[in-house]
Amino acid sequence: MTAAEIIAVGSELLLGGRVDTNSLFLSASLAKHGIEVRFKSVVGDDVDDIGVAVTNAAKRAKLVLITGGLGPTVDDVTREAVAEVTGKPLRLRPRAFTSIKTRLQAAGRPVTDTQRRQAFLPTGAILLWNSAGIAPGFAVQWKRSWIVCLPGVSHEARRMCAESLLPLLRRQGLLSPAIESRTIHTFGLLEGEVDRRLKGIIPAAGPFRLGLLASSFGVTVSLTQSANIQERRLAKKSVVNAPTSLDRLMDAVIAELGKYVFSSNGQTMEEVVGQQLRDQGLTVALAESCTGGLIAHRLTQVAGSSAYVDRGVVCYSNRAKTELLGVSESLLKKYGAVSAQVAKAMAQGIRMRSKADVGLSVTGIAGPGGGTPHKPVGLVYVGLATAKKSFTKEFRFHGERESIKIRSSQGALDVLRRWLCHASF
Amino acid sequence: MTAAEIIAVGSELLLGGRVDTNSLFLSASLAKHGIEVRFKSVVGDDVDDIGVAVTNAAKRAKLVLITGGLGPTVDDVTREAVAEVTGKPLRLRPRAFTSIKTRLQAAGRPVTDTQRRQAFLPTGAILLWNSAGIAPGFAVQWKRSWIVCLPGVSHEARRMCAESLLPLLRRQGLLSPAIESRTIHTFGLLEGEVDRRLKGIIPAAGPFRLGLLASSFGVTVSLTQSANIQERRLAKKSVVNAPTSLDRLMDAVIAELGKYVFSSNGQTMEEVVGQQLRDQGLTVALAESCTGGLIAHRLTQVAGSSAYVDRGVVCYSNRAKTELLGVSESLLKKYGAVSAQVAKAMAQGIRMRSKADVGLSVTGIAGPGGGTPHKPVGLVYVGLATAKKSFTKEFRFHGERESIKIRSSQGALDVLRRWLCHASF
Repeated sequence: MTAAEIIAVGSELLLGGRVDTNSLFLSASLAKHGIEVRFKSVVGDDVDDIGVAVTNAAKRAKLVLITGGLGPTVDDVTREAVAEVTGKPLRLRPRAFTSIKTRLQAAGRPVTDTQRRQAFLPTGAILLWNSAGIAPGFAVQWKRSWIVCLPGVSHEARRMCAESLLPLLRRQGLLSPAIESRTIHTFGLLEGEVDRRLKGIIPAAGPFRLGLLASSFGVTVSLTQSANIQERRLAKKSVVNAPTSLDRLMDAVIAELGKYVFSSNGQTMEEVVGQQLRDQGLTVALAESCTGGLIAHRLTQVAGSSAYVDRGVVCYSNRAKTELLGVSESLLKKYGAVSAQVAKAMAQGIRMRSKADVGLSVTGIAGPGGGTPHKPVGLVYVGLATAKKSFTKEFRFHGERESIKIRSSQGALDVLRRWLCHASF
Repeated sequence: MTAAEIIAVGSELLLGGRVDTNSLFLSASLAKHGIEVRFKSVVGDDVDDIGVAVTNAAKRAKLVLITGGLGPTVDDVTREAVAEVTGKPLRLRPRAFTSIKTRLQAAGRPVTDTQRRQAFLPTGAILLWNSAGIAPGFAVQWKRSWIVCLPGVSHEARRMCAESLLPLLRRQGLLSPAIESRTIHTFGLLEGEVDRRLKGIIPAAGPFRLGLLASSFGVTVSLTQSANIQERRLAKKSVVNAPTSLDRLMDAVIAELGKYVFSSNGQTMEEVVGQQLRDQGLTVALAESCTGGLIAHRLTQVAGSSAYVDRGVVCYSNRAKTELLGVSESLLKKYGAVSAQVAKAMAQGIRMRSKADVGLSVTGIAGPGGGTPHKPVGLVYVGLATAKKSFTKEFRFHGERESIKIRSSQGALDVLRRWLCHASF
């Protein structure tokens, strides 16, 4: 198995302004080809710092992937750093320059000396074409490792990885069978509860590794079996009665967690619900109070969602609830805007007015203000209405405003998901 | 100046399922106290790997911050790793156990052996209280460094950093004057244009560092001056005619970029617009097609937004545009749903029906389907209507569906922002 390290270059990644997301898809792509990313690091736009990171990584890993710092501006110094540390000076690569010129001219932009910088690559480097942008990538062999530089712009790096990098690694014989992993997404259980339920299922001494991750979207269970892990675990302990296949283990986990599992193929909640609505030929209309449009936003993130998302309304004020949904003023007065009764009336109102098959509503207190001892921040009601029946579900979430909004949207979509697959509540 | 490194622990951070966001606020908090984060790394839930990362980091940095792996479950092994590498064996800390028990009992949850694991800390460690969760953190001195462990759960780590870690570092004399940095957010210019405009303003040989970062939210300009950078730059080159203060440089950058600057104090676009609406006592109502609720979601992320967000509607279908906004069928037929005329009618419609001061609308093609040669994916119209006038603005965005949705929401909010501050378009 090939070990890899990823180095993300960019001072803004260190200063707290932005997070490195490229390494996510790179790790996932490499894992599919049996390359295990053991370390990731982030360094600023500094020739010396990048040099130290590359030197350390090359001591440990056969493949060192660097993202970012290939652009034309003054703070893009990855080329210089790699040239310096490997002792392969930068030289103008005419083919790279031609491709840069062609792209710039096609976009009606001038070819400047600044842009020309991007055509200077370390001597002997293999050029990686950038079919989605300007800056070319490259790969150089140094000591016993491959040092590969990809652009920081995400969709450029993705394309370059698929079109140039993986073929290069294949030619070099660095790809091996995939690291096996499975991911199961749940909603409605605490991390500790998931852990307790799974304790008897996954033998601690087996070749499988269990990971739990709690977020506002629920608890994600990851099951991993890599040759590497297997070797290390076997070296430490003998294996007794371990399940022999990751898929059988996954089935056991899904059976144990039951209705709390919303996805076992990597789909998000909005993709799962969208697929269900599409398969059943149903449409949904949304009435959102505390989620403020987040449910509509999430459902419409999915391409083709116009087929089943009829419309949504965001009604913070009581007046908007009355005008847009026909919720009666007396109901609002009697029970308050955050109540099961109003949630039900909102769901019924949006369904009736839109003529969609299902009306889904949320009303709650996202905080930080607005809570009372009787109705605290985090109290949320979800309503669901169809032509035949309507019902509500109460949630009590914790956390900050943003987290409560996410949890509320996830809770509402989960109510819809369970109703669509006839699960219990 | 104290150098720090951050190690994020979690196999899911390597496998491609999740990104480490804790290091963002930690970097920012530390920078405010003059501690420069020079490296970040990510390792899996493996005692040996964590040990290697800690050993390497402690060679280079006075402060090593580890996040994650402090929970009760089997894959939480940070405590073990630190105990092993520092040679300070784990011992039950009665005070930590008491606090864990108290918290669990208050939540009506059982105190199990699993939970008890969290009270075992390396011998001699300083306990860091967790006022927002269960798992305590800790700090140990090893060789010439402080090794500090914080929980992976974000709001717990934030609280612990502010309440326990920073006071500890202050007592140890590790805090120094802040690393000076300024961030300027722009929308409407390409990265290359920003770079070209700023070229004459920031001397390459001065003590300041310029960083540009392009994202779907616009181009962010960061200006940094750290003692460290200053020393290194001065050592390399002499400084001629450099601006003497970061604030004067920032003023020059803002003057050069003009109306494209939407924020220079860290505020997001929705916070800026929210503040303007609040200051001017105005309300807004939204009519969203291709953004699908994202604008409403973003505006309502801001606490207190119910004061100025009257309502929003998400109307994908022509029928919804007609029913909810009164857009005439003949207009839709004549110009198509994605047109300046329909954008204007949508903005006027939501304003009239809601009686809000401003109506803001978006209609466009988010893709991947739905584009034509005449109206390609990425074509977006924003409409703004008030009692006195209405107007529209056309955008042509590139990228994938998610990116086009974000750019469209940012474009619409920027139209509103410029109108509110009487800027040109």
